[in-house]
Amino acid sequence: MTVTVEILSVGNELLIGKVLNTNAQWLAKRLTVMGLNVRRITVAPDDVEEISNVVKEIINRKPDILITTGGLGPTFDDKTLEGIAKALDTTLETNPKAFHMIKEKYQNYAKERGLEKIELTPARVKMANLPKNAAPLPNPLGTAPGMIIECKNVKIVALPGVPPEMKAIFDESLEPMLKRLTGDVTFYETSLGVSGIMESELAPIIDKVMHDNPYVYIKSHPRGAEKTPHIELHISTTAKNPATARNHVTRALIQINDIIQTKGGKTKPFKTKPE
Amino acid sequence: MTVTVEILSVGNELLIGKVLNTNAQWLAKRLTVMGLNVRRITVAPDDVEEISNVVKEIINRKPDILITTGGLGPTFDDKTLEGIAKALDTTLETNPKAFHMIKEKYQNYAKERGLEKIELTPARVKMANLPKNAAPLPNPLGTAPGMIIECKNVKIVALPGVPPEMKAIFDESLEPMLKRLTGDVTFYETSLGVSGIMESELAPIIDKVMHDNPYVYIKSHPRGAEKTPHIELHISTTAKNPATARNHVTRALIQINDIIQTKGGKTKPFKTKPE
Repeated sequence: MTVTVEILSVGNELLIGKVLNTNAQWLAKRLTVMGLNVRRITVAPDDVEEISNVVKEIINRKPDILITTGGLGPTFDDKTLEGIAKALDTTLETNPKAFHMIKEKYQNYAKERGLEKIELTPARVKMANLPKNAAPLPNPLGTAPGMIIECKNVKIVALPGVPPEMKAIFDESLEPMLKRLTGDVTFYETSLGVSGIMESELAPIIDKVMHDNPYVYIKSHPRGAEKTPHIELHISTTAKNPATARNHVTRALIQINDIIQTKGGKTKPFKTKPE
Repeated sequence: MTVTVEILSVGNELLIGKVLNTNAQWLAKRLTVMGLNVRRITVAPDDVEEISNVVKEIINRKPDILITTGGLGPTFDDKTLEGIAKALDTTLETNPKAFHMIKEKYQNYAKERGLEKIELTPARVKMANLPKNAAPLPNPLGTAPGMIIECKNVKIVALPGVPPEMKAIFDESLEPMLKRLTGDVTFYETSLGVSGIMESELAPIIDKVMHDNPYVYIKSHPRGAEKTPHIELHISTTAKNPATARNHVTRALIQINDIIQTKGGKTKPFKTKPE
């Protein structure tokens, strides 16, 4: 059974186009390769009410997992945990484990900077305020811990928005947990470069090959304009067994390659991306 | 009154992390600079049911405008218009204007390639199938036209996923329409580089300056780890009058700069980005 995920990216900087949502892409890629199915990505502002609304909507769609990024830091506009708490109809409270993690971080920072101590101001303690019953996830690179909590069979995981910290917590805490959920599922993909044939001519061919290969997904990506056609066909699948995944993709690849060449199209050597 | 927008990006390639959602960032930036308020970005799969669900949810949230990208091409997995039609409880029908645009495109392509004609296959005619009562938006660079339709006071605009085509339709058809909606509103932003002070120390300072400058939004972006702090403060506003916008931002900038230097922090010359 496929494990389903939704991603929620929190941050006004994404909604004003100041930064690209590289976190969502990184997560989507990692989750897909692990065999999970990312069903939706949402970007919401730094606003408790809005975050809470989105989290409630996601819980109602019942994915197995919701991963949020951003909004865990010390500043007033880091509101993700407040939004999650509101959605879960609970409150934030200082989590003793999270408080201990943060206290240790500032002790270390003080030592490195040759200070006697760095005061635990309210802004710093704020990072230890988690929704009731949540567990903190250690942050190997930064200060704000991640968090995990479960609600109506949806596991909600909150990661920071700073990319290296987000990735470090994913690698250290989340990946092992997800592997237990998915078992050993493999995602396999390959690409075929096609020229000399228009995307609109490919449409019925892709249709036929996908029909003949039910486990395989084929998508065409136009790389030029329709009049100077150059198309990338992306062929992918997920399977329990890596050999099965590769076989499914290869079979579809050979079939579509044959049909395209019969129709006068040219294909380029397959760029295989092993994962 | 602020004009509100939601963006819906359609495409499995975004949900498997194959491509970065540069379209959403480009749109968010352009819309923000024009004074519009992007409230949410959603990424949905190439699935009629899912697209329809998302569109219905967005209509219920009553933004002034919904802009979709992707899923307008000739292939079987280009399903955005079918999803929109389903959400609007209507059907797709061949739009005479869109059909004419597409016919002309293929006549031109045939001429350029020295062919007598290129047949209008079902896959090609598909690009002229718009929801009933929709109007096509000409595509200066590619084949599939964009589309606009209104439902319950929400203007729904569908743009292609190929970035140059998306941008060309935005520039040619959408921007003039949006300017009529917003009037002449200006977005103004500047950045201040801060070092020698931790993000958690900045939090109460930002809070105070935003309180004193109600029209201004300030966000801190950590550029290093907490222990080697280097922070970018992004200060922005929107106003009818460009001078007003600049004044609001400058006043907040001077105030926060003074406070940071008083607390022993260092600031770098402001990178002003005129728009």
